[in-house]
Amino acid sequence: MLLGQVPADPVEAALAQLTLHFRKMPPVAALGVRPLGYDGRALRLTAPLSANVNDKGCAFGGSLGGVMTLAGWGWITLRMQLLGLQADVYVADSQVKFIAPLYQDLVAEALPADGEAFETFLETFRRHGKARIAMQARVPMAAGGEAAVMTARFVAIGAMG
Amino acid sequence: MLLGQVPADPVEAALAQLTLHFRKMPPVAALGVRPLGYDGRALRLTAPLSANVNDKGCAFGGSLGGVMTLAGWGWITLRMQLLGLQADVYVADSQVKFIAPLYQDLVAEALPADGEAFETFLETFRRHGKARIAMQARVPMAAGGEAAVMTARFVAIGAMG
Repeated sequence: MLLGQVPADPVEAALAQLTLHFRKMPPVAALGVRPLGYDGRALRLTAPLSANVNDKGCAFGGSLGGVMTLAGWGWITLRMQLLGLQADVYVADSQVKFIAPLYQDLVAEALPADGEAFETFLETFRRHGKARIAMQARVPMAAGGEAAVMTARFVAIGAMG
Repeated sequence: MLLGQVPADPVEAALAQLTLHFRKMPPVAALGVRPLGYDGRALRLTAPLSANVNDKGCAFGGSLGGVMTLAGWGWITLRMQLLGLQADVYVADSQVKFIAPLYQDLVAEALPADGEAFETFLETFRRHGKARIAMQARVPMAAGGEAAVMTARFVAIGAMG
């Protein structure tokens, strides 16, 4: 789907829905995770360093992994919602590399992994009520480069009703 | 080190230290993570489902990953503390498989990965002030099997003072 094909209002509505969804999940609310935006390509989330700091004054690795997982999960959830599709989305596995300590608020951006086509995922989902997709996510640093990167596979299962 | 070589009191003291350490890390405190025990082989942590529940009523994947990461980190931290070694311990990478939804309080247990020798890690650390070790962790379910498993590599770097 091209950027121009996603009208701004449905995206804003879907982001607001995602924000509510996050607030209803106690660990996500506790870490202060909220959507920053969706540009038609990547979903960006943020979380304050203060709620995610470890014993060394930088971001806790578990928070980096969690926020990247949520960004991947949120991308799929948002895109399916924009298409009016009901699905439960689960993370199946994840691989995280922690590259550098992060001393700033966390930002995680996610999009499908290289070589993955959302259209193929949708076709499988519509045909079988279940589909898998690999996502990639990164936590960029203000100084350049990444604090952490992730690849993860997710499964969407058609919801009743 | 054999079980019999770790006296109960130093272990209790090290676990109390780990509990304090966790409480000082805001995201870890928010998820309610605390040590359950160390039997000379594996470190076990726990966290209440209520603080870690997702939108589907089961444990949030990010919490499962975070608690397993902490268990691996905690194992190394605890064992080094028992030897009076000062080190900063960092997670370098992690691979998590999410196997089944968990509808109970989280328990994560960690120990060195198959084929890893803590003695070799210690020798390298004492010689170079820095060493790596691969850890494994699992989240067992009351009904049997695991909700999630992890392997992760950690780096310990000698601390000043």
